[in-house]
Amino acid sequence: MSESKKVINFSAGPAKIPEEVLLQAQNELVNYGSAGVSVMELSHRSSQFSKIINNTETCLRDLLNIPINYKVLFLQGGGSGQFSAIPLNLIGLKPDHTADYIVTGSWSSTAAKEAEKYGKVSRVLPKLDSFTVIPDQSTWNLNPDATYLYYCANETINGKIKHYLSITFGLIFAGAHKNVGCAGVTLVIVREDLLGYALPSTPSVICFRTQAEHKSIYNTPPTYSVYIAGLVLQWTKRQGGVSQMEQNSIQKSSAVYDVIDNSSGFYVSIVDKGCRSRMNIPFRIYRPEGDEFLEKTFIVESEKLGMIGLKGHRPVCLTCINLFVFVKQFHRYRKQARK
Amino acid sequence: MSESKKVINFSAGPAKIPEEVLLQAQNELVNYGSAGVSVMELSHRSSQFSKIINNTETCLRDLLNIPINYKVLFLQGGGSGQFSAIPLNLIGLKPDHTADYIVTGSWSSTAAKEAEKYGKVSRVLPKLDSFTVIPDQSTWNLNPDATYLYYCANETINGKIKHYLSITFGLIFAGAHKNVGCAGVTLVIVREDLLGYALPSTPSVICFRTQAEHKSIYNTPPTYSVYIAGLVLQWTKRQGGVSQMEQNSIQKSSAVYDVIDNSSGFYVSIVDKGCRSRMNIPFRIYRPEGDEFLEKTFIVESEKLGMIGLKGHRPVCLTCINLFVFVKQFHRYRKQARK
Repeated sequence: MSESKKVINFSAGPAKIPEEVLLQAQNELVNYGSAGVSVMELSHRSSQFSKIINNTETCLRDLLNIPINYKVLFLQGGGSGQFSAIPLNLIGLKPDHTADYIVTGSWSSTAAKEAEKYGKVSRVLPKLDSFTVIPDQSTWNLNPDATYLYYCANETINGKIKHYLSITFGLIFAGAHKNVGCAGVTLVIVREDLLGYALPSTPSVICFRTQAEHKSIYNTPPTYSVYIAGLVLQWTKRQGGVSQMEQNSIQKSSAVYDVIDNSSGFYVSIVDKGCRSRMNIPFRIYRPEGDEFLEKTFIVESEKLGMIGLKGHRPVCLTCINLFVFVKQFHRYRKQARK
Repeated sequence: MSESKKVINFSAGPAKIPEEVLLQAQNELVNYGSAGVSVMELSHRSSQFSKIINNTETCLRDLLNIPINYKVLFLQGGGSGQFSAIPLNLIGLKPDHTADYIVTGSWSSTAAKEAEKYGKVSRVLPKLDSFTVIPDQSTWNLNPDATYLYYCANETINGKIKHYLSITFGLIFAGAHKNVGCAGVTLVIVREDLLGYALPSTPSVICFRTQAEHKSIYNTPPTYSVYIAGLVLQWTKRQGGVSQMEQNSIQKSSAVYDVIDNSSGFYVSIVDKGCRSRMNIPFRIYRPEGDEFLEKTFIVESEKLGMIGLKGHRPVCLTCINLFVFVKQFHRYRKQARK
C-alpha cells in the first residue's frame, strides 16, 4: 500500500528514538569504543561507565542550563515511581506534612492519590467536570503551609500542557522513554537544600539524598538506559538544543492542529486551545466521544500505510507524536481514500 | 602483550553477556523482526512487546520449573530495591510485623537494616566475627511468629553460597545484571497467597499485588532490559538449561579454587570450604588481608593481558567470574612472570 516500507512511529512512550542514535548504539553494541565489551557488560564502577554517566549529566546540564545548586539523579521506577518518591522525600520538609496538587489530568490525579499515602494532600483547583481546560492561576486555592506545590507540565494522556507557571522549581522529573531515550531510567533534577527530609520509611534506592551522595550509584543504575539517554541528549545538542526542539514541536503540532481545526468537525480535539500539548494530541473522529467504526478504520488503515502507535490511551483514544511526517502521509491517505 | 586482542570480562555485575546474545541484539537493534522499529521504541502495550515479555516469562518458568501458583514479576530497582520491597509487601502478613534475617554477608546485612524501617527484625545467627562461615542450621534462633525468613543464597561480595536450605520458598528475587541480562530489570517470583498484605505506605510501582494484577505493566517496564533478559534465558535453554549451567559453574570455579588451594599460600581464600561461591571468588594475595603492592600489580598486569573487572569490592578485594578462561590465561601469565 505505502510507497516506502519505512514505519512511522507515533508511540507516545516508549517513543521514537532518532535513527542516528540507534545506528550508533548498534555500531557500539558488541564493543564500546576501546573497552572490548558492550556497555551492558561494563561495571557501573568502571572508569568507562563513570565517563558515560558524567558526560550524560554534563550534556543535560548544558541543554537545560541547570544551576549548580541542583543535583541531577538517574533513578529507576519511571514517573509513577516518582509519584511516591516525591512525597516520601519532600513532604517531611514542614511539620504539617501537607502538599498542594494541581490536578489537571490522569497523571497528576494519580500522583495526588499516591501522595495521600504519605501526608495530607490539597487539590488547589476547583473540581473540574472534565480535563479539558486549566483554570486561571488567580483562581487556585494555594495553602501557604504546604511543603510543596506539585503540577504536571504535560498531561500526555489528556493532551494538555501548562506553558508557563510563575514559580521557581524545586524538583523536575522525567521518564526518559518519552523523549530522552529508552525506558528504565528516570531523570530527577532537585535543589540541594531540599535533600535530607525523607520520611523514615523511604526506600534507600529512591532516597534523593542517598542517591545524590552516591552520584546515582548507591545501587547498580540502569547502565544501558543511561548510555542511550546520553546519546539522545548529545543528538539533541547537535540539532540546536532545547530552543530548536521547541520550534520543531510548535511546527509539527500546529500542522496537526490545523488539520483538526479545518476538518469541519470530522476530527475533534476537546482540549481548550490555550493549553493544547505540543507533544501529545489526543483527538476523536466525528464525535467528541469518538465514532467506534471510523476510529477503528482509521487505526487499521493507518497501520497499512506504515503508521504505528496511533492508538492512544483508552479514555481519549488517539494520540500523535512525531507529527510532521504524519500530516504528509495523512494527506496522501485522504486523497487515496477519496478515489 | 596478549596474543589476542579479545577482552576477558570478569566483572561481577553488570557481568558478561553471551556473545551470541549481543550479536542478535545488535542485529535487531534498529529493526526488530517485522516491527520496522527498535525494541526500545515499541509501546509497552504493543502486541510485539507483549509477546516479548510473555515469552521471557515462559522461558524463565520452563528453566526454573516455576509452579503455576507463583507469579513472575519484572520490576525495577535491583536487589537493593527489593531490600525495601520485601518487608513493605510481606511484613504485614502477621500482626507482629516481625521478620527473621540470616545475615551471612554484606547484602543480607544491608537487607536486614532496610527491613528495620518497616518492622521488627530478628537476626537468627549468633553474632559472627567475620563473614567467612555459615553456622549450621541447627544453631539458628528462628522466631515461630516471624512473617518470613530472609536469606541470601549467594553473598557475592563475600563469595559465599548456601547450597541448600530445607525450606520451601515464598519469594525469590534477582537483579538481571548478574547473569540474566543487563541492569535495569529485577526478577521477582512470588507465591500468590503472599500477595495482598502490603503496608499502606508501599509505593504502587513496587507493590507486588498491583504489579501482578497488571502483569508487570502497571507502569512502563524497562522494556529493553526485559528483551535482553529474554535473549539470555533463551540462550541458557539452548545451552542445556540450569543443570548444565550448574555443571559449568562447578567446573569453572573448581579450576580457580584449585589454583588458590595449590598456591602454597600465595593466593588466599578466607571463605570456609563448605560455603564457597561458584559465581564469585574473592581472594587476596600473599596475606589474608592482602598485600597492597602485589594486588595492585596483579590488577595492572591482568589488564595488560586483556582481563578486566578483576578488582572486587573494596572490603574483599579481588572477585572472579567466568573463571575457566581466566585460569588458562593466568597460567600463561605465571610462566611469563617467571622468565
